[in-house]
Amino acid sequence: MEVKNRLLNYNDLVIMQNTDWFSFSLDSVLLPNFVTINKNIENIIDFCTGNAPIPLILSTKTNAKIYGVELQKEIYELAVKTIKLNNLENKIEIINDDIKNLSNYFETEFFDIITCNPPYFKYSKNSNINKNKIKTIARHEVYINLNIIFSIAKKILKNGGVIAMVHRPDRLIEIIETMKKNNIEPKKIQFIYPKENSECNAILIEGKKNGKPGLRILKPVYVHDEDGNYKEDIKKLFE
Amino acid sequence: MEVKNRLLNYNDLVIMQNTDWFSFSLDSVLLPNFVTINKNIENIIDFCTGNAPIPLILSTKTNAKIYGVELQKEIYELAVKTIKLNNLENKIEIINDDIKNLSNYFETEFFDIITCNPPYFKYSKNSNINKNKIKTIARHEVYINLNIIFSIAKKILKNGGVIAMVHRPDRLIEIIETMKKNNIEPKKIQFIYPKENSECNAILIEGKKNGKPGLRILKPVYVHDEDGNYKEDIKKLFE
Repeated sequence: MEVKNRLLNYNDLVIMQNTDWFSFSLDSVLLPNFVTINKNIENIIDFCTGNAPIPLILSTKTNAKIYGVELQKEIYELAVKTIKLNNLENKIEIINDDIKNLSNYFETEFFDIITCNPPYFKYSKNSNINKNKIKTIARHEVYINLNIIFSIAKKILKNGGVIAMVHRPDRLIEIIETMKKNNIEPKKIQFIYPKENSECNAILIEGKKNGKPGLRILKPVYVHDEDGNYKEDIKKLFE
Repeated sequence: MEVKNRLLNYNDLVIMQNTDWFSFSLDSVLLPNFVTINKNIENIIDFCTGNAPIPLILSTKTNAKIYGVELQKEIYELAVKTIKLNNLENKIEIINDDIKNLSNYFETEFFDIITCNPPYFKYSKNSNINKNKIKTIARHEVYINLNIIFSIAKKILKNGGVIAMVHRPDRLIEIIETMKKNNIEPKKIQFIYPKENSECNAILIEGKKNGKPGLRILKPVYVHDEDGNYKEDIKKLFE
């Protein structure tokens, strides 16, 4: 197994990834820059943390303790190496388990913030899945889905705690429904467009446990300019 | 009562309005340009039609029969005059009644399309309402609300028929929930921003009766440029 060290050009953080499984993606930069981080927060957890890009970026923004959960052992090991490489063992801890087992590690209502870049695709036995098992689990809802994510969020979030997620727009309605079913009120949404005059291809959504109704829709984010280069707002995220 | 004839600069349509009640608004131009109008449609109805700007604009886009419903007699009379002034009596018919009574006029599953620019504000006896009663009813949910709109839509829409609405973003979650409760699947959303780098201040949403899940989020609409002039895309709507 060849593992490539790649410099994630974000405050000189280094991230280890195996490009046979997945590459570091822009989604993982957008989400930690979107989520509301207050000064007084104590505990953050990143579901489906992969090689831990989101905990790494969060660590530049807060002094809270950051946990990441990754089910797949091979990816978990990459995440752990990545944390060590960045000397962030004191700030970030990665757990190799299913999020369904989090009650073995934490009390209920322990977290101020959950972040989650989940598998985007629905899964059935007939799904057009990747032959690569690790990739399939990372991209398809084999072991985790929206119902599981938000019902666990409901338990482990403090009252007034938030969960922020990046996903695809065709799932937005289902995300909102599932949040509401679990007493998580959508409070903030941002839509990502690959370029001007394109339809949206990614969404950022934040919900608050037991929050009052009332939604803000932030200014749109365009990723590329007409020449295919990152727009200034995106470049800034990497500075 | 002074009634001002004002030229609605849209295909030379003329609209009558009393500016003590409300002025013709951009929302009424955006909605009929957003709604999906197929060739084979037969019947359209516009709820809360006011002085009928939406039926007027729809009449330039389809040969279907267009109905408008307006509860308030004074506004209904303006709408009727407006239709006559534009010689559109054969295409547009305005009904002076509560939408709750539409079953007195039409069979169930009669309509291909519903459009609706409803009152935006919740209403309670403590609401900070307008002293002007006509304006209060037009702007606050005194006689109509989202539950009423979508439960009636469910009855009078054909299977696969659509309802398109313009509203405020802070009500989006409630709109989606109420649509779903009535078997209307949100299929298309567009967000309106007053200018670049502002948060969204209006939404356009279309749902399909018994539609399959799967949402498109269209490109954002910016209304004004930095100098406060209409952007080109908006100007085009008036051409």
